[in-house]
Amino acid sequence: MRSVTSDTVTQTFVDLMAPDTSPRLRFVLERLAAHLHDFARETELTHEEWRTGIELLTKAAKITTPERNEFVLFSDVLGLSSLVDMIHSPQDATNSSVLGPFHITGAPDLPVGGDLKGDNDGDTVLVEGFVKNRAGEPIEGAALEIWQTADNGLYSNQDAAQPDYNLRARQVTGPDGRYAFTTIRPAPYTVPDDGPVGTLLHATGRHPWRPSHLHFIVEAAGYRTLVTEVFPDDDAYLDADAVFGVREDLIMQYQMRTDASTIAPDIAARDRMSNPYYVVDFDFILAEAPE
Amino acid sequence: MRSVTSDTVTQTFVDLMAPDTSPRLRFVLERLAAHLHDFARETELTHEEWRTGIELLTKAAKITTPERNEFVLFSDVLGLSSLVDMIHSPQDATNSSVLGPFHITGAPDLPVGGDLKGDNDGDTVLVEGFVKNRAGEPIEGAALEIWQTADNGLYSNQDAAQPDYNLRARQVTGPDGRYAFTTIRPAPYTVPDDGPVGTLLHATGRHPWRPSHLHFIVEAAGYRTLVTEVFPDDDAYLDADAVFGVREDLIMQYQMRTDASTIAPDIAARDRMSNPYYVVDFDFILAEAPE
Repeated sequence: MRSVTSDTVTQTFVDLMAPDTSPRLRFVLERLAAHLHDFARETELTHEEWRTGIELLTKAAKITTPERNEFVLFSDVLGLSSLVDMIHSPQDATNSSVLGPFHITGAPDLPVGGDLKGDNDGDTVLVEGFVKNRAGEPIEGAALEIWQTADNGLYSNQDAAQPDYNLRARQVTGPDGRYAFTTIRPAPYTVPDDGPVGTLLHATGRHPWRPSHLHFIVEAAGYRTLVTEVFPDDDAYLDADAVFGVREDLIMQYQMRTDASTIAPDIAARDRMSNPYYVVDFDFILAEAPE
Repeated sequence: MRSVTSDTVTQTFVDLMAPDTSPRLRFVLERLAAHLHDFARETELTHEEWRTGIELLTKAAKITTPERNEFVLFSDVLGLSSLVDMIHSPQDATNSSVLGPFHITGAPDLPVGGDLKGDNDGDTVLVEGFVKNRAGEPIEGAALEIWQTADNGLYSNQDAAQPDYNLRARQVTGPDGRYAFTTIRPAPYTVPDDGPVGTLLHATGRHPWRPSHLHFIVEAAGYRTLVTEVFPDDDAYLDADAVFGVREDLIMQYQMRTDASTIAPDIAARDRMSNPYYVVDFDFILAEAPE
């Protein structure tokens, strides 16, 4: 220890941890220190750059509130949040994607085929599909939580002009595993860029936009809970999501329709569907819960 | 971008940066993202562990004030702060070491041989030596800033019972490059461990102690400014400094003396030196400033 050098500091850090430290914690911290140290050595990080980093974190501290966590946002725009999602997405099941900060609990129940659009402005969209397991079998009793932006790009808990729980619902599948609801096309929006994350984005010529998306949490007994988002294939920001949330299998197609007579009779808003309207057909594949 | 995977996320991050991004910023961020991503992949970082990290940063945000920056402290106990010091310490010159949070400007001038101990309790120590360049030549007009703890382990700006600028001084070398002052032996102290850094230390069985030390900033025209600390070789925490500040060449010896007649006549406190007292003989070697 008394001869710590640039080459030995990582091992010294490891040696300082007590032998009875949890093996997992020890491993995670060893990897964290090794990567931090390699980063500093490879870049020959200057004192001024180190201070800039500390200042960004200190500014993040000042702007963080229970509603807005700038550290989460740093993790998001650096791709770390999405990477953690991807690492744990099971094979052959629908990929997970960022939960985001706008989820709230207690959304009202909506029967299969129910209407979420209500008085909201925007293109009418019928979103439907099935919740299935990896064998392709329908899952009965799967609960979907759905939330999305209004036409102005804001969620109900960001916008005093929207009713509580506007464009939020919980829907439970029947024996056929089917879910269905009518809603509006969500709008793209920006992540907050008035703080240090914005400084980082602006300095690297990145925009703060996220492509429009529908959020889902899909839960069913015996299956891993899926937290994900679904993106339209025609969104202008699909190829440059500020938070790296887009996955190939999470892209939906808005299919334009002009004839409402072909849609299922249980769609509540069927008689109000104006021309044109859109249909999204998207299935969720759940993986079995670990033993 | 729409096919981001665990394997491609780092390259996607790089590709999102505009071509006219500063090359240095681009390189530092590319290395930062690559190491963050490798860390997550190698550890298969779980969502729960990610949340724990975000919680530690959020708690650091809450406890950070202008006087106490928990992000700096995280950097310190992870060895990053010291590594940045070591990376930039020039060869064959005295190593730099952490500045710490207790430096203040405006310390009073003290002539060579002056007394800093005053009414402070503690072992009397004569600290002396030379400021030299790498060729071994004395540097005239080198300014040393000196600060240290009182016997209770607190700096003057942490302790209302101490006079302002207690145990702080600025001293300028004469033509022979010599500096000298009498003081007390500084005391070991802990870094703050009541916040998330303390959580990390406790979880890994680490103590929060720093070995006792004298802080110095040594400046001279034409030379790189040296920010460093000097540690006694008999300190109990020398082999486990919580912030990795100890370097082989920063260890001083307290030599016990019983006869004050041999010390230089310009030592102001010479006639007040009680038996035993200690002498520290330590030279500072400065590197030339870069062109």
